[in-house]
Formats: sequence, C-alpha cells, structure tokens
Amino acid sequence: MNIELSNKERMDELHIKNYRIIQNEDMFCFGMDAVLLSDFVKGKKGAKVLDMGTGTGIIPILLEAKEKGAMFKALEIQKESVSMARRSVALNGLQEKIQIVEGDIKEASKLMKASSFDIVTCNPPYMNHSHGLTNPDLPKAIARHEILCSLDDVIREGARVTKPGGSFYLIHRPFRLAEIFGKLLDYKLEPKRMRLVYPYIDKEPNMVMIEAVRGGKSMIKIEPPLIVYEEKGKYTKEIYEIYGMKEEEAKN
Amino acid sequence: MNIELSNKERMDELHIKNYRIIQNEDMFCFGMDAVLLSDFVKGKKGAKVLDMGTGTGIIPILLEAKEKGAMFKALEIQKESVSMARRSVALNGLQEKIQIVEGDIKEASKLMKASSFDIVTCNPPYMNHSHGLTNPDLPKAIARHEILCSLDDVIREGARVTKPGGSFYLIHRPFRLAEIFGKLLDYKLEPKRMRLVYPYIDKEPNMVMIEAVRGGKSMIKIEPPLIVYEEKGKYTKEIYEIYGMKEEEAKN
Repeated sequence: MNIELSNKERMDELHIKNYRIIQNEDMFCFGMDAVLLSDFVKGKKGAKVLDMGTGTGIIPILLEAKEKGAMFKALEIQKESVSMARRSVALNGLQEKIQIVEGDIKEASKLMKASSFDIVTCNPPYMNHSHGLTNPDLPKAIARHEILCSLDDVIREGARVTKPGGSFYLIHRPFRLAEIFGKLLDYKLEPKRMRLVYPYIDKEPNMVMIEAVRGGKSMIKIEPPLIVYEEKGKYTKEIYEIYGMKEEEAKN
Repeated sequence: MNIELSNKERMDELHIKNYRIIQNEDMFCFGMDAVLLSDFVKGKKGAKVLDMGTGTGIIPILLEAKEKGAMFKALEIQKESVSMARRSVALNGLQEKIQIVEGDIKEASKLMKASSFDIVTCNPPYMNHSHGLTNPDLPKAIARHEILCSLDDVIREGARVTKPGGSFYLIHRPFRLAEIFGKLLDYKLEPKRMRLVYPYIDKEPNMVMIEAVRGGKSMIKIEPPLIVYEEKGKYTKEIYEIYGMKEEEAKN
C-alpha cells in the first residue's frame, strides 16, 4: 500500500506484528505512557474498545496487535492527528477493525452509543490550569494540557460510554490521584486495579495506571511497582519486555 | 520505677531513647505498621497529637521519642490495653507528655475538643465484614476487624478533631484505598502524601500510609516505594534504619 507522508512526518516501527505508526515531532509523538497503558489493559475476547483522545492511534493499534479486543473505535479532536491515525490504520491493514472518529471527548456519549463499550481507554492531557506552564505550541499543548477537555469531562464521558461491568482505563500523573479517585467514584466507576510507575526504585512515581469497573464493588488490587530504569540509560527487564524488544536491540 | 507485669505480659525494647513497652501476646502486640506510621508522620514543633485506637500506646511513645510533637493524647477502648499503655507511659517517664484516655473512637469528637489537634494518627482495624474471617479471640478481633468502629467512624471523627490545616495520618490495607480516598474527600480531609509498602520489590503492596490535610488543596505527593525485604529473612536498609537497628543487631 502506498501511504503518503507529508513534510516532517515519519514512520516508526512498533516491534509487534511488524506494525508501524506515522508520527510528527512538531505535533506530538506517543510516549511511554501509551505503551504502558496498552500493556496494563486486560483484553476481553470479542471486546468492543474505545480510545478517547487517541492522537496518532497508538493505543488501538497496540491493543489490536496484542489481541485485546475485536472492534476498536478511537476519538480524536485534532485534524492532523486524525489524518495520521487513519493512514497508520491503513498502513497496517486494520481498516476493518479500527475506526478513527474525528470528534470531541466532551461529546463522546453523543458521538458513540451510551453503555456500548467493554473497554474504554484514555491517555488524557495531564496538566490543568493550576499545574505547569502551557506549551505555547498549540497541537502539543492540546495533547498535554486540559485546554479542550478537563479530567471531569474525560471521566464523565468515559463512564457514560462504558457498559455496566465494563472497564475504564486511565493513565495519569500520580499528583492527581485523589482527584481521579474522587471523580471515578462520583461517576460510579469503581477503581479495581492500579499500578504505579516509578522511574527508579528509590524515586517517586511519575505515572499511575488505573482500571475502574462501571458499577463494581469496592475493593482495589494494587499491583507490584513498575520500575522503568535499572540504572541511567538501562531499562529494566520488564520495560524491554513490554516494548517487545531485546536489550541488544534497544541499544542500537 | 517499679512497674508490675501481670501474667503473660512482657516488656520489649524500642531501640530508641531506651524506651520500652509492655505487651501481651494473648491480647495484641504492635506490628510493623505502627513503626512505619510513626516514621511516616512529619512532626511539627509544639504539635498537639492524638492517636485514635492506640492499643499499647506504641504510636505516641514512638512519636515522642522521635520528637514529632509536644503533647500527646491517645484513645483506647479496651481496658487491658489502656492499663498496659498507662504502665508503659510511666515506665518511660512520659506521664507529663502522654495521656492515655479510655474511650471509643466513635465518640472521639465528644471526648476531645473539636478541631484541636495538629496531628491525628490512626492504625485502625483493617478488616470489615466483607473481608476476612473474624478472629474468634475477642481482644485481637477488636484490634483487627471493624467490630467496634468502621472506617467511616475513624475518618469522620478524625476529621472533626483535626485542626483546619492539620494532618490526619492513616495506615491501612491497599485493597481499601478507593474507599479510604472517597471517605477522606467526603470529610474534607485532602490526601496530600501517600506511601505504599511492598513486602518485596516484585510483589503487591500490603500496607498504605496516607497523610490528609483538613481543608487542603487537591495535589498529592506519592513517595518512593517502601520495600520491606531485600530477600527472605533480610530486611532492606531502610527498614533497619526505621527500626533504629543495625543489621547485626537484628540477626541476634
């Protein structure tokens, strides 16, 4: 298939099923968070999956590669990202399985059928107005800061489109954990699994992954710590495994 | 000072300031949780401190030893524990600083002045009716299961006796984290610091320590993981330090 790349776009290997993805450094490239969240998600056979704010489509492409669902929809508000995501889907021959929808997270439950997804994932903007400087470069700022949607929007809409008993997955910054739990509980998404990501074993965590079940009972399983680096420049064995890379490959 | 020990009671070293504590294996002996919580608490000069459900008085005695407060009160409902705690306070010459009050956590805000403590600590019963078997041995069961007070009682009363801007500290089981955060937020105790205790680096955590500030702003600091064992039978350096022991001492 002949997929066109525009200026500044590039194609990267995903180290699984020979899938590739189109990215643009001037816009936003996927980070470790998307890869870790895809690993954290527990697949369900035949699952209908929605990714809210998909960017380049990295999460549904990785989830499909890992056979964690049967049918995927992905919502993205930025036109250029939608275009890259659609071309990446085509590049990997996934047009029958992954549909990229241009639209706003705030309206997810209008754009999608309510209570219709077994799995809903979101790697939302982490920063709100009271935390951090806003990136003046707009496409990146939209991906990183709560300019177009707030944490409340994400969790409210996530709750609406998740089936009762279905799972809503979020990756976020640990400093917002109390707010996240409060909102999940408000919207009847019960936190059931959580994993903290620590850059080094003796450092504070910089990411948290949460699975919340719509209408679930109160009892959460906190998983072993996910440590990223063994030492400077050397990932832990688990990180290499999640990336589907051998240590030697990563060094090249 | 001549302190009498009744049958089955024993006196243990605390490895700090030569303090000792009276315990009774048939009743309840303090565990690592009390030691870790005392380490987690940040002292404030001149602080008024309340420990709710103090058992043998281990937490106020350790907090006093670590100079984390100036005046301590400790509430305990079980008569035999109150007696042991009072004798331990006397044994260490702390009668001017630590007052053991016999009473019910559910009535803490009637027994104590509302909004009067800078620091409130609690190592409550971990298990509720839906989790775990009830220990048929009553004194131990009261310390471990929510027979006489629920998580809601603990957090509601804790919120009432903590000063605005003061800190409420809790150690609990991680599986109840969502419920704990929900109740803290309900009672306007904002979770500000949290640390998870993992028995081994690759295992799930079995304790969580939380500092919540009455009326605080939403932003939580999650601390580096606290790992207990380096390998079977060998504590990590941090655990030896928290216990105030050198590795060699611990082996004897």
